Amino acid sequence: MGHNSFGYEFTFTTFGESHGKAIGVVIDGIQSGFPIDWGKVQEMLDRRRPGGNDLGTKRNEPDAITVLSGMYQGKTTGMPIALLISNTDQHSSDYDELSHLYRPGHADFTYQQKWGIRDSRGGGRSSGRETAARVAAGAVAKQILASHGVSVKAGTVQIGTVKAEKRAWDETDNSLTCPDREAAKRMSDLIEQARMGQDSVGGVIECRVDGLPVGLGEPTFDKLQALLAHAMFSIGAVKGFEVGEGFHAAEMRGSEHNDQMDGSGFLSNHAGGVLGGISTGAELVFRVAFKPTASISRGQKTIDEHGKEVDLVIKGRHDPSIVPRAVVVVEAMASAVLLDAWYMDRAHRQ
Amino acid sequence: MGHNSFGYEFTFTTFGESHGKAIGVVIDGIQSGFPIDWGKVQEMLDRRRPGGNDLGTKRNEPDAITVLSGMYQGKTTGMPIALLISNTDQHSSDYDELSHLYRPGHADFTYQQKWGIRDSRGGGRSSGRETAARVAAGAVAKQILASHGVSVKAGTVQIGTVKAEKRAWDETDNSLTCPDREAAKRMSDLIEQARMGQDSVGGVIECRVDGLPVGLGEPTFDKLQALLAHAMFSIGAVKGFEVGEGFHAAEMRGSEHNDQMDGSGFLSNHAGGVLGGISTGAELVFRVAFKPTASISRGQKTIDEHGKEVDLVIKGRHDPSIVPRAVVVVEAMASAVLLDAWYMDRAHRQ
Amino acid sequence: MGHNSFGYEFTFTTFGESHGKAIGVVIDGIQSGFPIDWGKVQEMLDRRRPGGNDLGTKRNEPDAITVLSGMYQGKTTGMPIALLISNTDQHSSDYDELSHLYRPGHADFTYQQKWGIRDSRGGGRSSGRETAARVAAGAVAKQILASHGVSVKAGTVQIGTVKAEKRAWDETDNSLTCPDREAAKRMSDLIEQARMGQDSVGGVIECRVDGLPVGLGEPTFDKLQALLAHAMFSIGAVKGFEVGEGFHAAEMRGSEHNDQMDGSGFLSNHAGGVLGGISTGAELVFRVAFKPTASISRGQKTIDEHGKEVDLVIKGRHDPSIVPRAVVVVEAMASAVLLDAWYMDRAHRQ
Amino acid sequence: MGHNSFGYEFTFTTFGESHGKAIGVVIDGIQSGFPIDWGKVQEMLDRRRPGGNDLGTKRNEPDAITVLSGMYQGKTTGMPIALLISNTDQHSSDYDELSHLYRPGHADFTYQQKWGIRDSRGGGRSSGRETAARVAAGAVAKQILASHGVSVKAGTVQIGTVKAEKRAWDETDNSLTCPDREAAKRMSDLIEQARMGQDSVGGVIECRVDGLPVGLGEPTFDKLQALLAHAMFSIGAVKGFEVGEGFHAAEMRGSEHNDQMDGSGFLSNHAGGVLGGISTGAELVFRVAFKPTASISRGQKTIDEHGKEVDLVIKGRHDPSIVPRAVVVVEAMASAVLLDAWYMDRAHRQ
Repeated sequence: MGHNSFGYEFTFTTFGESHGKAIGVVIDGIQSGFPIDWGKVQEMLDRRRPGGNDLGTKRNEPDAITVLSGMYQGKTTGMPIALLISNTDQHSSDYDELSHLYRPGHADFTYQQKWGIRDSRGGGRSSGRETAARVAAGAVAKQILASHGVSVKAGTVQIGTVKAEKRAWDETDNSLTCPDREAAKRMSDLIEQARMGQDSVGGVIECRVDGLPVGLGEPTFDKLQALLAHAMFSIGAVKGFEVGEGFHAAEMRGSEHNDQMDGSGFLSNHAGGVLGGISTGAELVFRVAFKPTASISRGQKTIDEHGKEVDLVIKGRHDPSIVPRAVVVVEAMASAVLLDAWYMDRAHRQ
Repeated sequence: MGHNSFGYEFTFTTFGESHGKAIGVVIDGIQSGFPIDWGKVQEMLDRRRPGGNDLGTKRNEPDAITVLSGMYQGKTTGMPIALLISNTDQHSSDYDELSHLYRPGHADFTYQQKWGIRDSRGGGRSSGRETAARVAAGAVAKQILASHGVSVKAGTVQIGTVKAEKRAWDETDNSLTCPDREAAKRMSDLIEQARMGQDSVGGVIECRVDGLPVGLGEPTFDKLQALLAHAMFSIGAVKGFEVGEGFHAAEMRGSEHNDQMDGSGFLSNHAGGVLGGISTGAELVFRVAFKPTASISRGQKTIDEHGKEVDLVIKGRHDPSIVPRAVVVVEAMASAVLLDAWYMDRAHRQ
Repeated sequence: MGHNSFGYEFTFTTFGESHGKAIGVVIDGIQSGFPIDWGKVQEMLDRRRPGGNDLGTKRNEPDAITVLSGMYQGKTTGMPIALLISNTDQHSSDYDELSHLYRPGHADFTYQQKWGIRDSRGGGRSSGRETAARVAAGAVAKQILASHGVSVKAGTVQIGTVKAEKRAWDETDNSLTCPDREAAKRMSDLIEQARMGQDSVGGVIECRVDGLPVGLGEPTFDKLQALLAHAMFSIGAVKGFEVGEGFHAAEMRGSEHNDQMDGSGFLSNHAGGVLGGISTGAELVFRVAFKPTASISRGQKTIDEHGKEVDLVIKGRHDPSIVPRAVVVVEAMASAVLLDAWYMDRAHRQ
Repeated sequence: MGHNSFGYEFTFTTFGESHGKAIGVVIDGIQSGFPIDWGKVQEMLDRRRPGGNDLGTKRNEPDAITVLSGMYQGKTTGMPIALLISNTDQHSSDYDELSHLYRPGHADFTYQQKWGIRDSRGGGRSSGRETAARVAAGAVAKQILASHGVSVKAGTVQIGTVKAEKRAWDETDNSLTCPDREAAKRMSDLIEQARMGQDSVGGVIECRVDGLPVGLGEPTFDKLQALLAHAMFSIGAVKGFEVGEGFHAAEMRGSEHNDQMDGSGFLSNHAGGVLGGISTGAELVFRVAFKPTASISRGQKTIDEHGKEVDLVIKGRHDPSIVPRAVVVVEAMASAVLLDAWYMDRAHRQ
């Protein structure tokens, strides 16, 4: 399978560069007869869009999707669904002077070394823009999951050193989709402060899935958490992933961490909703750590393709933190994994 | 592809249950003409074996491998290599009384729910014993990588709240393969203390890979860190994974985290050896968090297959921490991923 | 992997319905730095196009491709190449009255049964139009193969009972790409005769590949001929496939069929260029049998979705034989298989 | 996926060489709770075994299978089933003098060229013995299909120029499993005649599947006939494959070939049970052409690894036709494909 494809039975293939004609995605393996609400797909794309909240860059990209195939009379036919998103804002001249430099924290160096050529306009294929295509695919998966009573909800729980202290998932009506209204304000301040300092800041997104049945995930190498980890680490700026207690589990005793059971079910959920790689029916909980945005306006040392040292100042507007916009990407990738696991589970049920 | 298989171009398929006749692995996609040193493979298996260090359980399993295929006159032929490891110590009667109970922290509940049947003897397929088969496959990959100058080295860097304070990789001659001799002693004490308390404790393993060329990893969904995350989360007790600065990156500024370059190369390695999903040529660094061993001797509440509440006391000897034995499993899985990435990279180089 | 994708290391995914907005293909796994000649790709598309020869239907579809991604400064970047082909001629009203009927020889019945819904306009996804997307992908593969000295050449060798009696591959400048100018005339007459009789006729295409190195193909399940057979039988109207002597081999003695060798190489090529699933370096030769076009103007009995019996007369123009237009489809799919095998072979060469 | 694995959701991986310690197979993706009748699996292995009929070689290989994993209390657990078949008859000294020669019609030349090394004992991995592992896997699939009312039945319909003239599937109690008792005798005579002439002869096997539901097979690249063609051409000596009318369809008119329908269903079955790549519910019919056995006792010209010309006389007993023993291999591979298609179809049914 190509490396720009994801999934086993619910799969999607993304294509396109940041400043090419368009990006897009081909979704394959979808069940037939499902009435996709494209308005809702567009809403998820809008959440990812720069300017979709008040913290991001100001580029104007409507990210309107065009549906090319796979639908008939408003329903899925089981055939591949191809979606296009045009690149309307292509100021690639912004990147001309960067085209032979390796921007620190970006894929410029490794792409040039591996392929001997790279589309340097805005990061080309390695740009965060590629995630718009994933969001479209994941938004479709999320709708199908919702029809089964499964809800996938992510939010920012940390920016820099500011952490959400509660998980009030009805308080996420802030630009960070943070489940702690109070902390959200301090997070926004920190992002603004980073912007003022021509710098950027990282953060952590938490995702919770309710309504999962027992039994999703496959044994051994395709444990549910392994599929999720793969999905999350395929997002460019991700540096950490943990399920349930995660790294904190390393500090715990078995007597604390084990989730005991009684007649009503699990008495706790330290596991985060998976045991042996299979969903337990409890809430699935995981967190994803993002590095600070690589593009900053401060001067940085780097080299060009010939090894010549250069003092680099990156112009243009860039998100001082990609975390707010990545929330919906995490939701999308999680949804894709879960629908894929759903279909795989069905394959062998008799 | 079956879910008991791993990899694209260097693949392996494991089989077998904890107390069945044997476990084993079929390695496929290996280059021809390579003289595998089976003694070294056996050494890696011995490191994983219970009793391979002084902290583990006392079960006696020599884990001797039998090579069934794929070798001719001491060299690989390019054909699949099948390896068998007999299960010599099969006190499955120890598990008779557990066969209808769901042990907290184990896969018993989810396996029973998903498949409606499970081999309850020692956890069956979900037992840590399955990892012996992976170690054998990974040991082969590690040798091939070594022939290219790539070294893969893991060690314990945390047990409970005790952390290694240094990374002296020449001090790992302790039962934890910990790169901090001093800390290793306190870690061992903590493990012993957990054992005495009929409890268990978690920990963190760090892995470092030197000698990698620039260019391993594929774009978009098969980034090197995504393949590694998938691999690590396929190990039963893993709850967290991070690369480079990992979760700490969330607290950093871009100006701190970005690895600037000069004519001599990268000036730092916060990224941990990957940019845009492709190896940078710098040291690859990642950490894996393990939960405390699920099997503890303390009394625990659980239910049986009919939902009846039971007070469970697990007998028999169990590792109070699986971390020391998991070090070699992390090395093996990392090696498998890296050789697979090596072959994939070669496929498209012209 | 999705079922609308083909290949392991050189892969492509097609999408789109006959009368939807567009069809297209995403090519993944291509080597970087290759200067694709899109004019030549367009030429192959023109060969497949209705009206591309004097025997086909008269629909006017320019089949002009739009390249959306994966190219930079005229060269491949190693990133996915997405190609779009608009559907300019969408007289779907022609199909309105067929939308609830099962046309004999078409996928109408099986699609409706399997998915419960189908895009009935012109056969939707099951239309031969989907092959245009394959031709685009295969044309790219063919160019890369040509740069290695490999040529892929197909032609019609049988229409109905008229067979080519020679293999003059420099005489293929006829509308059937038939390597026997004399026979080509009789074949054309037979096709015209079928058209006049409101009927259709089948045929056989032969493909020859020169310049292949020894060693393409993988052992056991991915033998080169198995990959080719899979590819050819994925073309809608194919009913037979054979390599070398093919079905005739069943009548031969081993002493006739075995290709003996001397110092100059093989003394014959009954095998057709493969032994043990691996290319021998000799000319690769295979044949593909096509059924007569399913759409005919004669009255036929069928039923509608409710099981009601109907006397069907299909209007509109249809190819009385799809064989002439399928020649380039065979070339394209063969090229895709061979480039994929090339990349797979490279993966494990050290 | 490794090239020694087959299938998507029902997969199996074979390993082992003709004269190594053992051959075997790992079956993955099987449904849980199925009571496999290993006696019936053994019966299918016995049908493939040399000496399993009166026409084959006289080597004594009981081919007794050992079940290593995946079963609990007589039922499948959903975990991988590993099966071993020991190689008891290892007269590899028979092959010593052949070890540096390229036997005509065998994989010796291509294996040596591709991998630079080969296990020359009895053909090693390329030996027909590998098919025993497939038969074991396919026999399991066949049982599961039978539990759904699907029967898979193959038989010899041609040896050399002798063809079965009828399809009396209740007359297959002959050593060729030929559905024409009269023709079977003449086929046996022809095989005996080839043996006496130190030669070999090819043939054709036909396979019929009854009881298939409508809907198996996937669109575009994984049409049911494409999966079957792939499977059949993965068998070493296969040179042709056709479905329904097959190559004869090339000579037919659309008005003859189209299967019309009335209220009772299809009025004919020229298609052979598939339309658009999906099973129609009618009988699935396909044929597979085998070349004459490559190993013959007559003198043949060949070269050794250094290009030196050699007059080769192959000693030992060899089947003058592999067709009789291949019947069960065709059944096994067909069963594996159909169960895989069954599981894939279920994955997306809601």
